[in-house]
Amino acid sequence: MGSEARFVSGERFLAEYTIAAADEGQARARAQDLCLEQTVEFPEDLLPPGPIREHVVGRLESLAAGEPGRFRARVSFAAETAAGDLVQLLNVLFGNISLKPGIRLETFTLGDALLARFPGPRLGRRGLRDQVGVPTRPLICTALKPMGLDARALAEQAYQFALGGIDLVKDDHGLTDQAFAPFAERVKRCADAVASANARSGGRSRYVVNVTGPADQLLVRAHLARRAGAGGLLIAPALTGLDAVRMLAADDGVALPVIAHPAFGGAFTASPASGISHGALFGTLARLAGADATIFPNHGGRFAFTREECLSIAAATAEPLGALAPIFPAPGGGMTTDRAADMREVYGRDFVLLIGGGLHRRGPDLADNARHFVELLETI
Amino acid sequence: MGSEARFVSGERFLAEYTIAAADEGQARARAQDLCLEQTVEFPEDLLPPGPIREHVVGRLESLAAGEPGRFRARVSFAAETAAGDLVQLLNVLFGNISLKPGIRLETFTLGDALLARFPGPRLGRRGLRDQVGVPTRPLICTALKPMGLDARALAEQAYQFALGGIDLVKDDHGLTDQAFAPFAERVKRCADAVASANARSGGRSRYVVNVTGPADQLLVRAHLARRAGAGGLLIAPALTGLDAVRMLAADDGVALPVIAHPAFGGAFTASPASGISHGALFGTLARLAGADATIFPNHGGRFAFTREECLSIAAATAEPLGALAPIFPAPGGGMTTDRAADMREVYGRDFVLLIGGGLHRRGPDLADNARHFVELLETI
Repeated sequence: MGSEARFVSGERFLAEYTIAAADEGQARARAQDLCLEQTVEFPEDLLPPGPIREHVVGRLESLAAGEPGRFRARVSFAAETAAGDLVQLLNVLFGNISLKPGIRLETFTLGDALLARFPGPRLGRRGLRDQVGVPTRPLICTALKPMGLDARALAEQAYQFALGGIDLVKDDHGLTDQAFAPFAERVKRCADAVASANARSGGRSRYVVNVTGPADQLLVRAHLARRAGAGGLLIAPALTGLDAVRMLAADDGVALPVIAHPAFGGAFTASPASGISHGALFGTLARLAGADATIFPNHGGRFAFTREECLSIAAATAEPLGALAPIFPAPGGGMTTDRAADMREVYGRDFVLLIGGGLHRRGPDLADNARHFVELLETI
Repeated sequence: MGSEARFVSGERFLAEYTIAAADEGQARARAQDLCLEQTVEFPEDLLPPGPIREHVVGRLESLAAGEPGRFRARVSFAAETAAGDLVQLLNVLFGNISLKPGIRLETFTLGDALLARFPGPRLGRRGLRDQVGVPTRPLICTALKPMGLDARALAEQAYQFALGGIDLVKDDHGLTDQAFAPFAERVKRCADAVASANARSGGRSRYVVNVTGPADQLLVRAHLARRAGAGGLLIAPALTGLDAVRMLAADDGVALPVIAHPAFGGAFTASPASGISHGALFGTLARLAGADATIFPNHGGRFAFTREECLSIAAATAEPLGALAPIFPAPGGGMTTDRAADMREVYGRDFVLLIGGGLHRRGPDLADNARHFVELLETI
């Protein structure tokens, strides 16, 4: 097999999977197959004795029966396999194995050295609260929409929302660089509008620009947004690759809060038997990548997440994760007076409420509608 | 609602979805919800009359019953919503709707103006055949593995494979920039090894470098690979974002064939009721992005794709798609003498056979093993 590698650290990271299997024997065989598939991708009997077999191949640490037909496998991997970056970490955690049926990544835990490679969120909950000047109540975020309005109309909307005290006025995630509202024009007009509204109201609303777009335009658009006076960035990591979040969050020339949007990511959580758990995907991974807030559909709205799934995301945004700050869960949809108590129960007061159509439904005065919902949030 | 946009082209693109529903009425309601969700993301009753309602909102073109509990919905979208880029096209096709259960994107068809925004593969089947000097038989590709070998050992393997006539000697998709085989050293040694083998054999093997990695390293690694003498690039678009394929394929300074790897993409095809069809994801989208070959697990191997799913991918690599060249399907796994007839039946002769462990299992002389499989492919 030739020369073998040095494995200096001995550090390993741990992943927990749910594996569908008829019995424990089959579950063990599937888990051991996973250990090979995610690392050496090589027949076990052809591996020579030595460090590759001992260290590089994933190690099945424990296997336990769960629900009928499901088993929980804890597998550890050598820290070196992840190459210190998010993309390869995802590849080891769930690359090829995503193509096999009935395997779900539930959680993962990194060792200190690997975790230290991820600076995480620039601001986190406290930093973002400082920026918008809101010490305790939930923050409120809305989106400029519908797609098809021109930049001038979107900016007028942004002005009204900022005037009404919306903390984060963001582009709808479908606004990119369409001919009807070109990126540069939209960003300039909306940033100016929010600044004008803040000047009039004394508020600190921030305009959050959607930079989701072509791979070689992400940083270009982020810098353009920064120069135009934007107050944050929105990006959909399932569309751009999760590492784009990391790249934007780490850029000191941009230095803006980053909000992750779940568009295109639903395939990972669509089936309880495969994909990635809600908490790991929308919570831990978003935070590891450096998002300051992570948007997801609240339970009871027009999407299908359950209350428990939302709770798991909220938990993952704040549980201990090395030196990484807690980030905001940002549940979207369906906020009404009668749901306030439930939101308080699920999210406490440390969340960003994302509200869309509801802000328009109340009446034609968007600033007044905004004030109404900000006041409602004070009561949570 | 303020001023409204100009919609000049009138061009629309068409997507076909399978929607789970109890009856046609529910299916229609879900399809109409999709038309809103993927575009304006706004309550229909609050939309003003005019071009946004008439053009921007998706349009349900037809609805037909399929298997019990499933309906086929054809929905058209204004070309302008896609902003002429791949990321926003994906967002309109399957962004938010990915988060709703029981909706699967089956196929899509772009109009001429939108399609013209995608240059597609640099080489395609014919171009790649020219580069490796193989006019008619299936091409053969193998991967340097297992992870954990150092750069010197990987290069020795690359030498043997090239000497034995493997057309495409690629990095295993798990090799990125690990300490045990750092990117720059591995690429230089392996490229040199393949060049030496070619010089000795008179062959035209190409070394394909895995550039899957951090967002801001993709182009850096691609250019480094090119300068080191690499003959192609490997990238896993589900990890990096699909547009990274487009970026690499379009870069004239790199100008290398690009091979797409399915790692992390299995979540999209894991459930027949949600996600994206095999043909659309691994076929049409890979080709639209500019991959010259698209790797996927062959049926009957250690993964779960069916023969029909593999056929659908193969079909999508070659069906009419504007001016875009056909690309190679690259089924992986399980090639043995007795499977040759089936591969011929499914893929014809225009495919890339990806072979891994089988090349090692035959015996210790890797060059001899390679010759054996190349000869086997001559018989297909």
